[in-house]
Amino acid sequence: PKVVTLPGDGIGPEVTAAAVEVLREVAPDVLIEEHLIGGAAYESHGEPFPARTRDALGDADAVLLGTVGGPQNSPWNSLPRNLRPESGLLALRKALGCYANLRPVRVQPGLEHLSPLKPELARGVDILIVRELLGGVYFDGDRKIEGDTAYNTMRYTTHEVERVAKVAFWAAEQRRGRVTSVDKANVLEVSELWRRDVQALRDRAYRSIHLNHEYVDSVAMLIVSNPSRYDVIVTENLFGDILSDLAAVIPGSLGLMPSASLGDGAGLFEPIHGSAPDIAGQGIANPAAAIMSAGMLLRHGLKRSEAANQIDRAVALALRAHPTRDLGGTADTETFTRGVLDALV
Amino acid sequence: PKVVTLPGDGIGPEVTAAAVEVLREVAPDVLIEEHLIGGAAYESHGEPFPARTRDALGDADAVLLGTVGGPQNSPWNSLPRNLRPESGLLALRKALGCYANLRPVRVQPGLEHLSPLKPELARGVDILIVRELLGGVYFDGDRKIEGDTAYNTMRYTTHEVERVAKVAFWAAEQRRGRVTSVDKANVLEVSELWRRDVQALRDRAYRSIHLNHEYVDSVAMLIVSNPSRYDVIVTENLFGDILSDLAAVIPGSLGLMPSASLGDGAGLFEPIHGSAPDIAGQGIANPAAAIMSAGMLLRHGLKRSEAANQIDRAVALALRAHPTRDLGGTADTETFTRGVLDALV
Ligand SMILES: CC(C)[C@H](C(=O)O)[C@@H](O)C(=O)O
Ligand SMILES: CC(C)[C@H](C(=O)O)[C@@H](O)C(=O)O
Repeated sequence: PKVVTLPGDGIGPEVTAAAVEVLREVAPDVLIEEHLIGGAAYESHGEPFPARTRDALGDADAVLLGTVGGPQNSPWNSLPRNLRPESGLLALRKALGCYANLRPVRVQPGLEHLSPLKPELARGVDILIVRELLGGVYFDGDRKIEGDTAYNTMRYTTHEVERVAKVAFWAAEQRRGRVTSVDKANVLEVSELWRRDVQALRDRAYRSIHLNHEYVDSVAMLIVSNPSRYDVIVTENLFGDILSDLAAVIPGSLGLMPSASLGDGAGLFEPIHGSAPDIAGQGIANPAAAIMSAGMLLRHGLKRSEAANQIDRAVALALRAHPTRDLGGTADTETFTRGVLDALV
Repeated sequence: PKVVTLPGDGIGPEVTAAAVEVLREVAPDVLIEEHLIGGAAYESHGEPFPARTRDALGDADAVLLGTVGGPQNSPWNSLPRNLRPESGLLALRKALGCYANLRPVRVQPGLEHLSPLKPELARGVDILIVRELLGGVYFDGDRKIEGDTAYNTMRYTTHEVERVAKVAFWAAEQRRGRVTSVDKANVLEVSELWRRDVQALRDRAYRSIHLNHEYVDSVAMLIVSNPSRYDVIVTENLFGDILSDLAAVIPGSLGLMPSASLGDGAGLFEPIHGSAPDIAGQGIANPAAAIMSAGMLLRHGLKRSEAANQIDRAVALALRAHPTRDLGGTADTETFTRGVLDALV
């Protein structure tokens, strides 16, 4: 099988290199091909998602992404919107047809003290957020600034709602069987359609799932004040952007959060943390999320759950033995990665 | 001066009655006129914002609102959208022209233990969220369900952005002089306009304010992991809906959270908690937020800051002496209210 890696910007290259080392170890037959994305791609090809990268995806079985984007004051941020690093990411998601972003939020036993929440609230949290990734206000429809007025259109179709809801129901079947669908149906027509279609699909094909509907503002509260009430959360693109980042702080370090984006073709796997330009190039970034993303790649992208489990176990051990700075330890990227490699088998 | 009260649904009538008692005590000359809104108005007039209520606002100096909305399974929720309780609230905001929703989030010294956050994170938090309340995806523009597709339009004009940003800058001048403007300018044109106009206004007329811009997903993280970094937050309607509710959990009880919505005419003052149908009519609801909203009404609506300070001090004392159930105490609505009245002077 072929895996395309897109290291990207900031600490992306360092953490991707670490993940690739681990990937090679547990799946030596995988062919790895590296390409450019984001600001790095703009610098050498004048666009954040160059044709060469797009072409390489054609026969890929999975894509491992680092991070994209520069510092706040980067000149990249004043480029026309379609040339900015983030546009490369949005174009990549679209090219791959990845409509379902999976974000597991798990508080590792013994690491509750890292959470900003009280330990009794953080303990045992195990949520899977499924974010729709191609539609809503992110879609390519009517969007413009016209004089003193700006517009964006939020749009969903039944087809888009159903395909991501299926992923959520399927995931819930492997978990505790509960799905919370999040919307703003008291205000938005788009949410009315969303709620109606998710419920209809459940009633038609997933009767064993316990489905409920909650408003996004209420979920923002409850995910902090009572996170254990959630199993799988499914929601539209913008709400998912906000809620998945919010939930990601519960375990206490973004350095621990992988993600998978699935669709009809090759899946996209990436740590959720940003490009952290302030520590880029110093060899001190925590590569755990990138390595765990490689684990998700093996599980969901290449259907190798044995290898994925191997990685998960090794990362859990390395986190205890060699905590990085963001976890209050002193291990650098190399030491942590070595720790994972040693803990494999 | 004339104050219109709109008790609304659920615990609205109980907490509003408590707030009115306190209001009468500190401002005996105020004329109080009660009217219907929400589900209660629908039941007796067939609409959630009846003409009689609208007419009464004409010569009002301020409006004190309770809460609107029924339980999840209420038949109100299957009415056509324009007849639902929430539509009454949206119509009320519009009729009053209240474009700036002010939500103070303050952790009272000694009550840090109520927060879901670790006490060291909750301590000293003092944020003012200014939410734009009439525009964005809430505005009355293009919105429809057409077969299998639904649309909503997000819209902002420079005029709408500037008037709410002014409120934020003005508020920051009385506080620590820092404003964080929240958007999603890496994806949305509407946010690009927002960011541009907020910055231009600052550069033109509020040079003493320290302004920075952050993405909504990042703020959702930081408001939990590091809430003390914020002074005033200003943002558009939907982001404000989510972030203000999120921030509201930090003090530990929604029962402590008042709000003020200001515009060109009479201001609207209301507790942020919901109608809590499960405890409605039992006389056990915590009226602190409604009473504090009456305090904001005196301060911002009637410009009587002395009376407002009186209320704030009395509430702080009553919270210690007579905590209600949501605060781990046993006081009912009447006992707490009596406690506030006794602590006045
Ligand atoms: C960078 C940005 C376009 C992106 C998004 O909003 O989808 C990011 O926030 C994310 O969640 O991956
Ligand atoms: C009830 C609903 C329409 C309302 C809103 O979204 O504005 C509520 O959530 C609020 O924040 O006051």
